[in-house]
Amino acid sequence: MSNYSAPLKDMQFVLRELAGIERVAQLPGYEEATADVVEAILEEAARFASGVLAPLNFSGDQEGAKWHDKSVTMPAGFKEAYAQFIEAGWNGLASEPEFGGQGLPKLVAAAVQEMWKSANMAFSLCPLLTLGAIEALQLVGTPEQKAAYLPNMISGKWTGTMNLTEPQAGSDLAAIRSRAVPQGDGTYKIFGQKIFITYGDHDMAENTAHLVLARTPDAPEGVKGISLFLVPKFLVNPDGSLGARNDAWCVSIEHKLGIHASPTCVMAFGDGGGALGTLVGQENAGLKYMFIMMNAARFAVGLEGLAIGERAYQLALAYARERVQGRAIEGSTGPVTIVHHPDVRRMLMLMKSQIEAMRAFSYTVAAAHDAAAHHPDADERKRSQAYVDLMIPVVKGWLTETGNELAYLGVQVHGGMGFIEETGAAQHLRDARITTIYEGTTGIQANDLIGRKIAREGGATLQGVIALMRQTEAELAKQGGAEFAAIRAALGQGIAAVTQAAEYIVANYAGDIRGVSVGAVPFLKLMGIVAGGWQMARAALVAQAKIAGGDADPFYPAKISTTRFYADHVLSTAPGLAHAVVNGGGGAMALAEEML
Amino acid sequence: MSNYSAPLKDMQFVLRELAGIERVAQLPGYEEATADVVEAILEEAARFASGVLAPLNFSGDQEGAKWHDKSVTMPAGFKEAYAQFIEAGWNGLASEPEFGGQGLPKLVAAAVQEMWKSANMAFSLCPLLTLGAIEALQLVGTPEQKAAYLPNMISGKWTGTMNLTEPQAGSDLAAIRSRAVPQGDGTYKIFGQKIFITYGDHDMAENTAHLVLARTPDAPEGVKGISLFLVPKFLVNPDGSLGARNDAWCVSIEHKLGIHASPTCVMAFGDGGGALGTLVGQENAGLKYMFIMMNAARFAVGLEGLAIGERAYQLALAYARERVQGRAIEGSTGPVTIVHHPDVRRMLMLMKSQIEAMRAFSYTVAAAHDAAAHHPDADERKRSQAYVDLMIPVVKGWLTETGNELAYLGVQVHGGMGFIEETGAAQHLRDARITTIYEGTTGIQANDLIGRKIAREGGATLQGVIALMRQTEAELAKQGGAEFAAIRAALGQGIAAVTQAAEYIVANYAGDIRGVSVGAVPFLKLMGIVAGGWQMARAALVAQAKIAGGDADPFYPAKISTTRFYADHVLSTAPGLAHAVVNGGGGAMALAEEML
Repeated sequence: MSNYSAPLKDMQFVLRELAGIERVAQLPGYEEATADVVEAILEEAARFASGVLAPLNFSGDQEGAKWHDKSVTMPAGFKEAYAQFIEAGWNGLASEPEFGGQGLPKLVAAAVQEMWKSANMAFSLCPLLTLGAIEALQLVGTPEQKAAYLPNMISGKWTGTMNLTEPQAGSDLAAIRSRAVPQGDGTYKIFGQKIFITYGDHDMAENTAHLVLARTPDAPEGVKGISLFLVPKFLVNPDGSLGARNDAWCVSIEHKLGIHASPTCVMAFGDGGGALGTLVGQENAGLKYMFIMMNAARFAVGLEGLAIGERAYQLALAYARERVQGRAIEGSTGPVTIVHHPDVRRMLMLMKSQIEAMRAFSYTVAAAHDAAAHHPDADERKRSQAYVDLMIPVVKGWLTETGNELAYLGVQVHGGMGFIEETGAAQHLRDARITTIYEGTTGIQANDLIGRKIAREGGATLQGVIALMRQTEAELAKQGGAEFAAIRAALGQGIAAVTQAAEYIVANYAGDIRGVSVGAVPFLKLMGIVAGGWQMARAALVAQAKIAGGDADPFYPAKISTTRFYADHVLSTAPGLAHAVVNGGGGAMALAEEML
Repeated sequence: MSNYSAPLKDMQFVLRELAGIERVAQLPGYEEATADVVEAILEEAARFASGVLAPLNFSGDQEGAKWHDKSVTMPAGFKEAYAQFIEAGWNGLASEPEFGGQGLPKLVAAAVQEMWKSANMAFSLCPLLTLGAIEALQLVGTPEQKAAYLPNMISGKWTGTMNLTEPQAGSDLAAIRSRAVPQGDGTYKIFGQKIFITYGDHDMAENTAHLVLARTPDAPEGVKGISLFLVPKFLVNPDGSLGARNDAWCVSIEHKLGIHASPTCVMAFGDGGGALGTLVGQENAGLKYMFIMMNAARFAVGLEGLAIGERAYQLALAYARERVQGRAIEGSTGPVTIVHHPDVRRMLMLMKSQIEAMRAFSYTVAAAHDAAAHHPDADERKRSQAYVDLMIPVVKGWLTETGNELAYLGVQVHGGMGFIEETGAAQHLRDARITTIYEGTTGIQANDLIGRKIAREGGATLQGVIALMRQTEAELAKQGGAEFAAIRAALGQGIAAVTQAAEYIVANYAGDIRGVSVGAVPFLKLMGIVAGGWQMARAALVAQAKIAGGDADPFYPAKISTTRFYADHVLSTAPGLAHAVVNGGGGAMALAEEML
């Protein structure tokens, strides 16, 4: 069965050479993230991912989470693995030290999260959701809520959930109907049904803190009348011990395409008289808090695309090196391993090069997040935050769409064996499929990107990014050789495509919002491909400098060759995407709806 | 649950206006395929597909075929549906009238097959495999074999299988080890294990004729020593009645990602002393027969890509018309159905336009096959056969890769519901995944395309096709308006891309076969996209002529708009693919294997 080995060398390279971990470690509050500490953390995480989480990935998928009598039983081994996970202190890696977290930079957490997600995506969703709830309470919880919940949630003793979706309210939270009735003593009774609640119930932790969006009796209609409530599975006594079972129950779980080990719950609040909860933050401000947390969640789901791509790649590569089939196309005395066949090589390089591009791109966004949160200079914080805000939908949308493509290729490399579940390649395809949907579909991300992040500010932040890309292009021009010439040409063409498409969006968004929005997803993909190519070009320049400095590590020439492949096979699609953005609006809308 | 309604209007349009059913009906032997007859057949098939096969698609997937005691039980309803299928005479639609077939053109059969595959792909594989076995026996069976088997197989009373793959022999049939030992009486005893045998056992028919590749004792090594044998499940007595159970058993079935209702068997031949079989055709010529049959099978699997795309589209469209979520991006007083959202519209148009392009392209290839088989003029037969040979790998590779994309989009349109198995969208994604693998992976198709079909003849047949495409482009230039200008520009760019890439392949295939082969799949996709665009452009021209002639059917302006969308969003990717073909070889091969 499938093994996982964390790609530490590339992770370290990106952290050091592209994302600037040394600069991050100089930010106030991150001083402990020295090179030695980070290396030790990554190595320890790699061992945990390979040794504890990865072996449960396939068995967890086959067995699945089971529902019985309003509660969920996890697949064999998950409870024990979770106990080890929190025992080792992994849950609070990037949370506030005030409540027991380790306060490490998001950049380090990104690399560690990538490992959890590669090793066992279904498992990783539990700490991910807990982290979202932690962030909400850190942000706007009362002192009492923080004191009672944060230490237990940061340690992982208790888990957290996010209860947003209702049957009629998916992407559109304005349609939420769940009710919160004040009891006069500062508490509320919550009534309503929530669907698609990840880890809404399970048997790995003592308690679960449900964060629930609901409306108070006199709340305004729409998104301005939604409040956020903390509704624990078990009530918490003043002394911190657990009290009565609250009226919040998992009434069924979904039969899904993938992530079978992650229970996706229908949650019923208040069917037995009302689920007791307390308000988090201000009344009617729930959606605002959700949007703040969403950036973190969207980034994390983006990493899932990268992580599944990496796992699918490792599996496909191992098979391609081992499977003997057919003669070499140039002639051979006997059959060869399929890694020798040019089309298999092409598929593996499509996986490898896009994985490296996604990793470089997303980690640099994480570093910008750290600067936005901790930089002493306010202008630098603002600039960094603007970069993060611009790129979050790209991280989410592009990494998850690409992760799906790579899982698809992973199956293809296996040939007929890829269609057999025992091989494990199909699981990655199934698991990946949710990533472009939850936490906002690719279409939602793309609308956010072209609307709020570009058109609203006339493309100002993006223009700054394009200027940085042009600097990299100028550096490429100083290098000799065919590889750098190809990389430079492709990046230059990519930047031109982004520029053209963005100018079109800025100029036409107000006047033709429907036509421009047809190009939203093509533009998001274009942005991702070019931003990834930009980071790969930076990587190639670092590699070239290392080689010029006498470093004989074969990692460096491989990085340049991989960048060149990316230029020829991935960046080359940029002009076509720009064409769809600029010309594709009218044709899409021309048909009467009944003619579809 | 999902319904299916055959797209008769577009099918009829393609048959009449693009594939020339009237000309096909003038070919000797096809005189019965008059417009009235064809229309009646399609309508009857549509009723059968919707009424009998489609309702079993989801339940068949959920229940799956079951193995017990060396035999397979089909999911509920399949046995009865198969009985109705053969009772209605559908099995022998395009088979030889001499043995009870109806001898209809492949063009008509293609439309009917599309319906079976859309309605229930897992079911459709049984008659598909039977048809393959029928064609082998028609081609090279002895008079005795034909008399004993063909009438029962053409009626569907008996089914057929193709036993090629062994664990070490997948794409590479040279590695086959199954043995055939002559018994001195004209019969052989067959020994060996075959895997991935579709419908290797089931309970829908009285008998099954296994066609098995095996080696005789003194056979040469490699592909030149493979012979084809007919090994029935039950021996057939001289009077045609069934005799003893033969030593050919299904010893297990695979646990697959999709097509759960189609049993994929491990077949053991001869474990109990030898499976009795007879030679089909000449000794050591088995692979040649397989290749001849493979064209038909590859065409049929290509249709599966189209068919699944169509089914996924119908499901997604129905959901998009019904699901209310979010306000219109341009503003609306209340929530709207999601079909109104530009990105959902884009996804639906990507599905619709590529479905129509695939249908137009594949049906015209079917028409060429009919001309190749029945045209009175030998030159025309030869020309048509060359066109078919060139395009078969494109039909197989492009339609199946695109079918997967469309099934993926079908899930995306559903949002979170798409990930829930009950919705049915996920099944199409799972079922589609095998189509790019079996009957030769996309990589195998692409190698065949650039090697045997293009480089070997210096691109001669393709040049003829390009000339025809240029004629269509010239016709487009005579039309007015923005839509035709956009279509013409995109088609012209597409033709230029194919020309450039093909010239590169012809010039460099001998000298750099590995580098050129890296571009094989990008070239195959390029060919498909441009050939599909060419047929869509022909369709738009026909539509324009109808409109000019006063026909007010909204089908015609919709066809032009759909072609324009295809031009902007699909044909626009052609230059990028050509770039990968022409420039992508070196970078792909630069890395040492251990650096992957």
